[in-house]
Amino acid sequence: MPVNAAEFTAQDHGYMQRAIDIAALGLYTTTPNPRVGCVIVRDGHVVGEGWHARAGEPHAEVHALRQAGELARGATAYVTLEPCSHHGRTPPCADALLAAGVARVIAAMRDPNPLVAGRGLARLAAAGVAVASGLLQAQALAQNAGFISRMVRQRPWLRLKTACSLDGRTALANGESKWITGAAARADVQRWRARSCAMLTGIGTVLADDPQLTVRDFPVERQPLRVVLDRELRTPPSAKLLAMPGVLLFTAAQDATRQAALRERGAEIVMLPVAGNRLPLAMVLAALAQRGCNEVMLEAGATLAGSALRAGLVDELLLYQAPVLLGDPGRGVASLELASMQDKLVPRVIERRMLGDDLRTHMLFTPYEHLLASAKEAA
Amino acid sequence: MPVNAAEFTAQDHGYMQRAIDIAALGLYTTTPNPRVGCVIVRDGHVVGEGWHARAGEPHAEVHALRQAGELARGATAYVTLEPCSHHGRTPPCADALLAAGVARVIAAMRDPNPLVAGRGLARLAAAGVAVASGLLQAQALAQNAGFISRMVRQRPWLRLKTACSLDGRTALANGESKWITGAAARADVQRWRARSCAMLTGIGTVLADDPQLTVRDFPVERQPLRVVLDRELRTPPSAKLLAMPGVLLFTAAQDATRQAALRERGAEIVMLPVAGNRLPLAMVLAALAQRGCNEVMLEAGATLAGSALRAGLVDELLLYQAPVLLGDPGRGVASLELASMQDKLVPRVIERRMLGDDLRTHMLFTPYEHLLASAKEAA
Repeated sequence: MPVNAAEFTAQDHGYMQRAIDIAALGLYTTTPNPRVGCVIVRDGHVVGEGWHARAGEPHAEVHALRQAGELARGATAYVTLEPCSHHGRTPPCADALLAAGVARVIAAMRDPNPLVAGRGLARLAAAGVAVASGLLQAQALAQNAGFISRMVRQRPWLRLKTACSLDGRTALANGESKWITGAAARADVQRWRARSCAMLTGIGTVLADDPQLTVRDFPVERQPLRVVLDRELRTPPSAKLLAMPGVLLFTAAQDATRQAALRERGAEIVMLPVAGNRLPLAMVLAALAQRGCNEVMLEAGATLAGSALRAGLVDELLLYQAPVLLGDPGRGVASLELASMQDKLVPRVIERRMLGDDLRTHMLFTPYEHLLASAKEAA
Repeated sequence: MPVNAAEFTAQDHGYMQRAIDIAALGLYTTTPNPRVGCVIVRDGHVVGEGWHARAGEPHAEVHALRQAGELARGATAYVTLEPCSHHGRTPPCADALLAAGVARVIAAMRDPNPLVAGRGLARLAAAGVAVASGLLQAQALAQNAGFISRMVRQRPWLRLKTACSLDGRTALANGESKWITGAAARADVQRWRARSCAMLTGIGTVLADDPQLTVRDFPVERQPLRVVLDRELRTPPSAKLLAMPGVLLFTAAQDATRQAALRERGAEIVMLPVAGNRLPLAMVLAALAQRGCNEVMLEAGATLAGSALRAGLVDELLLYQAPVLLGDPGRGVASLELASMQDKLVPRVIERRMLGDDLRTHMLFTPYEHLLASAKEAA
């Protein structure tokens, strides 16, 4: 069955890289499905390529097999995720690969769902196909951290975004925050929003900034769900957020009049119990996972960001830093109330990149490979 | 007289770069004098090199001429600062170059002192030597920003150093700050301290951290002067700062007993009037310039750092940022109390560099060339 990664050749690496690159073409459209790419190679030539575009449409393998036609017989298929073995909205890809006569299947990673992991490859192996997995797994994990998180942890991948000054201020004391970072950084944020299934914020941000939380200046087929933690249901029916459908308000407020006014404006309201004066963020995330949310982007003030960080629920941090000073008493990134330096939060920096004059530091609190450890625990 | 920079050849640039490089050998020792290097070239060969090491010792030109000997006749001298034309602790270098028969003198920059600027080159030109200036002037300015500042602005070059988290916190709310940045960043700070004439801090830092403010783990011939803004003279006679001589306390407190106790411990006390409840920082800097301080390094809490920034007295900012979050209500870099985003401070970033896991962002509030504009205004 799966072979040692060291047994993969340079050619194997190249084809799998190509599969990952074309999988990324589905970055903004596949949800709730994962991004998947497939490359079929025979006698050193690519005979078919495919990527999954949208839920309900054919999987990557099917597109690639169609392109390859008869040339798939005896070929090797490189696929970024283990081919499915179950009937979903489309027939199992493992069967399609078998029917086409593919001789060898290499997956970047196994299906993250512990209930099905390995079954697709096992089905192929049982039919005499040579199978292996784990090639460029790190990249495959990064590409589908949200889907994998939902499968193995039953919660979305939570990405906190913050834009601040060198001295870590996200706004002046009076709330003014337009604009700290420049156009390139702000455009980059829009792309991260576009790949997210949901935008999450707190009522404080809604009342202070009246944000739309939609994707702007970047063409998208679907807007992310906009989610507000609004314990007392203070979102005004006139909030810009409500101008477009797709708003979910989590609240503990029973007020029927307010609820009706907000439902009138298209909002969906979900009641939650209050834990320690706050809405239970873990339950919110679980509810979003149940709705098929893979990646959730948190754009919030210091209170909610701090709660999420302290609760260990933030997986990823995108920090955009402009080379300016705003000074105290400007508003901070996160309220943490640390008692000792030993408690400081130490994310893993995976990239620093300039966007115009601003620096984007990309960090992980959950290294991608830890998602697989969660899968093993669950299995 | 001085020719257009475009007339300098690639060889000229190379030799001047060498002169700047060897001038840097005096980085930690020349004060209050500037760092100066000299390279003498004849027929395409370097025949003499010299750099100024210590006040009272020969200037760079003298060292280089000694090495060149008779070969200086007809040669070109590259010097990072216009040769002096006045009798100081040593005879004028312009005379020494003339006596040696040098045919051409190229200076990276003219003497910044508006009272003498150009006289050294004029003296040489009058004697028939070909002269020019302005070659690699930007580097020469950067190397002696402190000396130039003192000459043209009658105040030192003020460098603010701060070490903070990604969210701009320099300590926890309880004051704990050991350690935010790693060993490489802390060692780098020692080198910046070592090149400074004085370390400046506030009484708040003395009381909270009891710092020594000396150069550690880096061999130095002289420690910087340690200067405390201590309006009410609250520095305890037991402060670690006082363990070594070279401490200057600026105060408005007349208390003879306290003054005596601190003088007993070796501190020098300078009385200043109070302006708006604070010691006048501009007067402190002027007093340090009068004592020959070129570069002053400010390591202080948010209050003093904020005052200096708001007063426009900070020329340079060294910000060491560790990839950690400390959160609010941690202590900030600077109290600025901005009323509008238009008032944000926007330094010019001149370098970003990794030191271990930490990022050093090196910024200027006073671009070096502005020092020359000051000189022109003064002249």
